[in-house]
Amino acid sequence: MAADASDPARPPLPASPHAAGAHRGGRRHAGRPTMKDVAAQAGVGLKTVSRVVNGEAGVSQDTEQRVQEAITSLGFRRNDSARVLRKGTTASIGLVLEDLADPFYSPLSRAVEEVARAHGALLINGSSAEDPEREQELALALCARRVDGLVIVPASDDHRYLAPEIAAGVATVFVDRPPGRIAADLVLSDNFEGAREGVAHLVAHGHRRIGYIGDRPGIHTAEERLRGYRAAMAEAGLPVAESWVAPGRTDADRVRSDAVRMLEGGRGGEPVTAFFSGNNRVTVTLVRVLAAPERRERPVALVGFDDFELADLLSPPVTVVAQDPADLGRSAAELLFRRLDGADDEPRTVSRPTTLIVRGSGEIPPSG
Amino acid sequence: MAADASDPARPPLPASPHAAGAHRGGRRHAGRPTMKDVAAQAGVGLKTVSRVVNGEAGVSQDTEQRVQEAITSLGFRRNDSARVLRKGTTASIGLVLEDLADPFYSPLSRAVEEVARAHGALLINGSSAEDPEREQELALALCARRVDGLVIVPASDDHRYLAPEIAAGVATVFVDRPPGRIAADLVLSDNFEGAREGVAHLVAHGHRRIGYIGDRPGIHTAEERLRGYRAAMAEAGLPVAESWVAPGRTDADRVRSDAVRMLEGGRGGEPVTAFFSGNNRVTVTLVRVLAAPERRERPVALVGFDDFELADLLSPPVTVVAQDPADLGRSAAELLFRRLDGADDEPRTVSRPTTLIVRGSGEIPPSG
Repeated sequence: MAADASDPARPPLPASPHAAGAHRGGRRHAGRPTMKDVAAQAGVGLKTVSRVVNGEAGVSQDTEQRVQEAITSLGFRRNDSARVLRKGTTASIGLVLEDLADPFYSPLSRAVEEVARAHGALLINGSSAEDPEREQELALALCARRVDGLVIVPASDDHRYLAPEIAAGVATVFVDRPPGRIAADLVLSDNFEGAREGVAHLVAHGHRRIGYIGDRPGIHTAEERLRGYRAAMAEAGLPVAESWVAPGRTDADRVRSDAVRMLEGGRGGEPVTAFFSGNNRVTVTLVRVLAAPERRERPVALVGFDDFELADLLSPPVTVVAQDPADLGRSAAELLFRRLDGADDEPRTVSRPTTLIVRGSGEIPPSG
Repeated sequence: MAADASDPARPPLPASPHAAGAHRGGRRHAGRPTMKDVAAQAGVGLKTVSRVVNGEAGVSQDTEQRVQEAITSLGFRRNDSARVLRKGTTASIGLVLEDLADPFYSPLSRAVEEVARAHGALLINGSSAEDPEREQELALALCARRVDGLVIVPASDDHRYLAPEIAAGVATVFVDRPPGRIAADLVLSDNFEGAREGVAHLVAHGHRRIGYIGDRPGIHTAEERLRGYRAAMAEAGLPVAESWVAPGRTDADRVRSDAVRMLEGGRGGEPVTAFFSGNNRVTVTLVRVLAAPERRERPVALVGFDDFELADLLSPPVTVVAQDPADLGRSAAELLFRRLDGADDEPRTVSRPTTLIVRGSGEIPPSG
């Protein structure tokens, strides 16, 4: 288990867009600028500033532009807690997921919702379906619908499109995967260490030929877990045949065909005696492959990344490296409301430890 | 299996709010009124009508009122496909679920999303957490954020709060459970017939003492399934001890304690030899109760309503009455886009058949 702490190894980040407004204008301001300051600088009434900030009708183009200039010059941010509490409409936060059908996100979503509710805010969700363009479209659509903040499980690796929204005051927290090319709060599991521990567990039970089947390259979690697999193999002095490493899509057909190939020793690699699975979607397919009658004579070990419902009731019960998706969601939502309450410090990264849960499938000795 | 058709037994409904606008004004209109008609009647330009309809700035209160009166009097509906296609912002539909953590809704949500996407619209989700007030708050918040339509899995039994939104042109379709006190399109499974078939299957395998554990009274699906249980027992001439019927919350503790009581023959009823489970949350707990080592000597039969992942890999594999949640979501979304494309006929009810999937747990003979 990794320590539950900010990651000191995180690479340096570009200047925080959270802080950008305060340095951009010609005039610096002592303390956080208020709507009153904006009204004074623009030479308009408080009500007019409120209308502009909340996108209400009844302000001429000219006046709106003056107010916007004052907002920019002062570095005024609309989403302090005062706004959340005082504005007429219900406060809301948006959650952008990558897949509505992956049960990993169910407890994560529910935890975000519970924190939102405790803060009197509604949660509005959407899914990118693992499509970067869709993620951008959805995140911006939620901003256009005036969410106060966003929690994002990113599909994209470039989030510069969010910088104007963040500068305009939409608090943004990433979870499960890091943001790309912007700085923002981030909560994620220690994927590298979790995978390393899971593979080392198979090695400790005598396995030397271990297959890795995981999600696509380019997905942060998938790359970290593959890195953990390679690290554990290297630490044990075990060579890795490239035919044992199969990142890719997580649909059943792809996973099944790579698994069968590895079990039969295709592409020049010897047959594997164990699998390390990169996520719950892959694990569920591997359970099916290994449960086939013709496989039962020579049982193959399995450790999966992510726990899943009923894993303990399968035969054999499935050993997993468990994340705590509810904890990830809760932590991300709490960071978000911390920003909405006015926290203005540099973006934070919170890394959560994983837990190896030993149940049976990961303790099967090599039969090859 | 029930036929896949509209339900002729559905009780008569109040007059359709979908059609309300067309009959409300003093002036009837041949064909669907257009923005041009509204502009002519209000004596303003087309751009002004567009601004009012889309809630944009730059229209005086006076003018806005004139336009609103024309809209009401003509029965103009903003959400025809022309609007979806022509307006500047992305078209979007909202989905209100009752529980983010219930895996039943994952394929349903994804199917709604796929249909939305095929129509170039975004899907925005939220959960009522089975709280009627929360449902209302969320549905109205989505309307305030200008979704073009709503798909709702209701927690409430009174949806009159939606009538003004529906009259204003927000297409609304209910799925899984019917609307209360308004008329709207509805897609649901044939819960009664599915439950009746599942219980009759247990009876056919020799069971006479069958326990029912399901969701809370007041939830439509729960009541229909309990009705199906009672019908199957009555048709077989079997008495039902009230200690065998346990509707209630679906958390594991409640389900476990009622199950253990029924297995031990508490509250004056003889011990049950089989369970019919009212949904997948209940089934998963019953699987755990029945898998306990002390229960294995006298195996108890189980048929569950709803299929679930890995049901076929448990021992024994679990016999279920399966709904097709993806089909429910797809059908609901298609009805919604049919309304958005201008369909103006009376609300429809679509009933979907269930499928009994025989796997083993439902074919265990009585051991008592």
